[in-house]
Amino acid sequence: MTKKAPTYELHYWPSIQGRGEFVRLALEAAGAAYVDVARLASGDGGGEKNLVRFLKDDAHTVPPFAPPILKAGDLVIAQTANILLFLGPRLGLVPDDEASRLAANQHQLTIMDAVHEAHDVHHPISAGLYYEDQREPALAAARAFIDERVPKFLGYFERVVATNMSDAPENAPLRAVGSSLSYVDLSLFQLVSGLEYAFPKAVRRQHRRMPKLLELTRQVASEPGVARYLASERRVPFNEDGIFRKYPELDLEPTKQ
Amino acid sequence: MTKKAPTYELHYWPSIQGRGEFVRLALEAAGAAYVDVARLASGDGGGEKNLVRFLKDDAHTVPPFAPPILKAGDLVIAQTANILLFLGPRLGLVPDDEASRLAANQHQLTIMDAVHEAHDVHHPISAGLYYEDQREPALAAARAFIDERVPKFLGYFERVVATNMSDAPENAPLRAVGSSLSYVDLSLFQLVSGLEYAFPKAVRRQHRRMPKLLELTRQVASEPGVARYLASERRVPFNEDGIFRKYPELDLEPTKQ
Repeated sequence: MTKKAPTYELHYWPSIQGRGEFVRLALEAAGAAYVDVARLASGDGGGEKNLVRFLKDDAHTVPPFAPPILKAGDLVIAQTANILLFLGPRLGLVPDDEASRLAANQHQLTIMDAVHEAHDVHHPISAGLYYEDQREPALAAARAFIDERVPKFLGYFERVVATNMSDAPENAPLRAVGSSLSYVDLSLFQLVSGLEYAFPKAVRRQHRRMPKLLELTRQVASEPGVARYLASERRVPFNEDGIFRKYPELDLEPTKQ
Repeated sequence: MTKKAPTYELHYWPSIQGRGEFVRLALEAAGAAYVDVARLASGDGGGEKNLVRFLKDDAHTVPPFAPPILKAGDLVIAQTANILLFLGPRLGLVPDDEASRLAANQHQLTIMDAVHEAHDVHHPISAGLYYEDQREPALAAARAFIDERVPKFLGYFERVVATNMSDAPENAPLRAVGSSLSYVDLSLFQLVSGLEYAFPKAVRRQHRRMPKLLELTRQVASEPGVARYLASERRVPFNEDGIFRKYPELDLEPTKQ
């Protein structure tokens, strides 16, 4: 009996959630057959060295700039939102109509903007320098992010969910796009979870303004595929090498309501 | 005789190129019928007040987070790369096959990442504060951007163009995706032009490593629709309210080859 080849290969840093986590969540929620290549033993093609070798491979007809990278047959696709644009229809994680697909992609891009900004709080000068070498500007960046951007992003996504649910039957599951679970719901779960990990005070201050978004993240966490994944060793814990980092000195008390 | 309604409405800040410029270039290169709404007189619906009113309009079924926003019939689409994903096929600015469309979207997203980083050089702490209040960290951010990121992004896109052209006939026009002009070529023109405006020393240092990318930007600038647009008053000049800003103190001499 030959082993069936997995449908998808994910190539991403093995020791962090990072941007790859948005792809992992989609694959896991859908129960897709995939290999998280860099998490294999190095003898089996895993590890960071092999990941960098794959990234720089001259054989790619469309060179990727950075991980995450998805290999699906002959296709090699980079950029998180682009990978989800590709996977969404294949995994049943986006509605069929063009308007909904554009809405999903739009929301995913705004989520990636929020992720970018959350990362830049601890790396305001350069991602190429250590956090320890930019702690003072990081503190100023945290102040602005916590007071201005966290309320703005969370308030915005609350509005997105509320607007999408405005015509839904009572007790329908909460969704950001359409009426079935989409990759946007999964990504909102990840964004809210990451912000709660890194900036618990800032998120707590917003709780009463984001009832739908909080309930959506709870519902996503209890989706069978997601719940199984979160309880497994495949879920890398949040840590201080990733995008969302628990630095107590940056978890400032918000100065605004 | 009734006036024909334009096919597209672009809603973007009227006094800067910014992210809206990537959409303007696509519409102009294709000769599309569009209105740059915020550039109209305020009595005709133009100006920043009307733009903000449109942005916050509760009637949107998919709320936009920020401009640029494209209105096409009943569709209201935000996020630059998402707008171009929608416009590309309609304007004949992307190849037909899925692999090429994913490649185009991937490149556009990497271009937007570069744009984000170029902006953050002069606003490393927060986009909500004045440049004048973050000049010292901006100088440190410029050093890292110029030494590490400008060579990385330009070198990467040179590789993208070279790889795409590897099987093309000699003397074929240079393209980033496929063999016809795409929105990625237009966006690369805008990225290189913006970097040349803001960081001329850093870009000049890379010139000999980016022959194809330079030639591609020259060819894009001489495309009839683009050339007409660049010579018109519709092209807002680069200025110090936009993403790419000519601050002499940030135009550092690169320390690396």
